[in-house]
Amino acid sequence: MQHFNHDKLGNMTARYRAQLINSLSGFKSANLIGTVNAQNKNNLAIFSSIFHLGASPALVGFITRPNSVSRHTLDNIIHTKKFTINQVNSCFWQAAHQTSARYSADECEFQETGLSPYYVDGINAPFVKESRLKYALTLRDIIPIELNGTQMVIGEVTDIFCDDEAIKEDGYIDIESLNTVAISGLDSYHTSQRLSRLSYAKPSVEQSKISLDGKSPSKDLDHV
Amino acid sequence: MQHFNHDKLGNMTARYRAQLINSLSGFKSANLIGTVNAQNKNNLAIFSSIFHLGASPALVGFITRPNSVSRHTLDNIIHTKKFTINQVNSCFWQAAHQTSARYSADECEFQETGLSPYYVDGINAPFVKESRLKYALTLRDIIPIELNGTQMVIGEVTDIFCDDEAIKEDGYIDIESLNTVAISGLDSYHTSQRLSRLSYAKPSVEQSKISLDGKSPSKDLDHV
Repeated sequence: MQHFNHDKLGNMTARYRAQLINSLSGFKSANLIGTVNAQNKNNLAIFSSIFHLGASPALVGFITRPNSVSRHTLDNIIHTKKFTINQVNSCFWQAAHQTSARYSADECEFQETGLSPYYVDGINAPFVKESRLKYALTLRDIIPIELNGTQMVIGEVTDIFCDDEAIKEDGYIDIESLNTVAISGLDSYHTSQRLSRLSYAKPSVEQSKISLDGKSPSKDLDHV
Repeated sequence: MQHFNHDKLGNMTARYRAQLINSLSGFKSANLIGTVNAQNKNNLAIFSSIFHLGASPALVGFITRPNSVSRHTLDNIIHTKKFTINQVNSCFWQAAHQTSARYSADECEFQETGLSPYYVDGINAPFVKESRLKYALTLRDIIPIELNGTQMVIGEVTDIFCDDEAIKEDGYIDIESLNTVAISGLDSYHTSQRLSRLSYAKPSVEQSKISLDGKSPSKDLDHV
C-alpha cells in the first residue's frame, strides 16, 4: 500500500493534491442547482457536495467555495431564498459537467449546455426538465466554515417531483432506475449496479437482503 | 411525474418520509469510521454522510445525529481527537452495514462483524484492514446545526493508505477499481460502472472524455 504521510501530503502540487484529496470521501452525488438572479436570469451549476441532513424537517445541505463558479448560485439563493436541486442522470451528464465552466453572470448555462428549464407556479427557481428526480428548497441557514472559508448552505425541501415508477412502497426511490450518476474525484462519472437493499441491522440478528420494495426477506434477490 | 407538495410531505409516516427524503441527495459515500474510547476499546460505525470539504488544508466532514448509533463515534473523537475513515468495498459491504446495529459500548463492532482492525504506530484509532483506501484524521472542528440538532464534525487528513495501482498519474484515485460501493436511500448498496472522466470545463470549448490517467483527449475511451 502507498502511504502518504504528513510530509508527502505537504509536498505535492496543488493539482495533484486536489485530485487525490477529492477522491478520499468516496462516491459523491451529482446534482444541478437551479436559481434566478435579481434580473430574473437563470443560473445552473453542478455540485458534488450535496448531502442529506435530516428527514424531519426535510433538510439538505451543500458546500460553496469562495470565488468559485458557484458564487452566482450563492448570490442568487441569498437574494431569492429559493433553489432547485436536480439529480443528474446518464442522459445529460456531459451537459451537466459543462455547467462548471466559468460563465459570466449574463450567460445562461441552460442555453450554453442545451438543457431545458422547467417552471412550476409559485417556485421562483428553474428546474431541469431532463432530470427525473428534482425538488425545490427554501433557504434555512448559511453556516460559515472558518477553517477554509467555505460555507454550508442548508435548504428545506418544499416540493418533490419524481418519476412515478421509481417510488417504491416504503418511500425508497430507486435512483438507479432513474439512471442517476455518481461522481468520483473531480471529474469522473459513474452509473451504478445494485448489490441489494439490506434489512435494518440489529445486534445478534443476521441481516438479510430485502427486495426493492423493502420487503424482507427476498428469496428472489438471492439469485441475482 | 409524482408531485409531493407541502401537504403531502407533512402527511406521511415517519418511516416513509425517512426513506423518501434520504433518497433525494443522490448517491452517498459508504465509509466506516474507526475510533477508540477511554478504555481503549475499538468502535466502528458506517456513515453515509462523509463529504469533501477542501483540499488545502485537506478537510473532510461528516454529520452525526443525536442519540443515534453514531454517538459512540462522536464521544470517542472528542476524547482522542483522532479517527480513521475507511472506504467500504464490495468484499465487505454487508459486514459494514451490520455496524449500524445498536451495539453497547462494551461490544466491539470488529468482533461482531468479523472485520479486522489494523494499527499504525502513532495513530490512536483503528483502521479496517479489509479497506483498500483509508486515512487518519485529526479533529479540527465540531459545528452544531441548530435546525435539527445534528453536528458537523470536521477532520484534517494526516495519513492516507491506498492500494498502489489505484493511484493515477495526476493524483486521481480510481475508487471503482477498488470496488468502493455507494449507498442510496438508507439501505441500498451499489457498485459502479465508469462513464468517463471529463476534461476541465471551459466556456465555448467542447469538453472531451479523458483517460483514467487524466490525459486528454483519449481516443480509446470513445470506443468504450
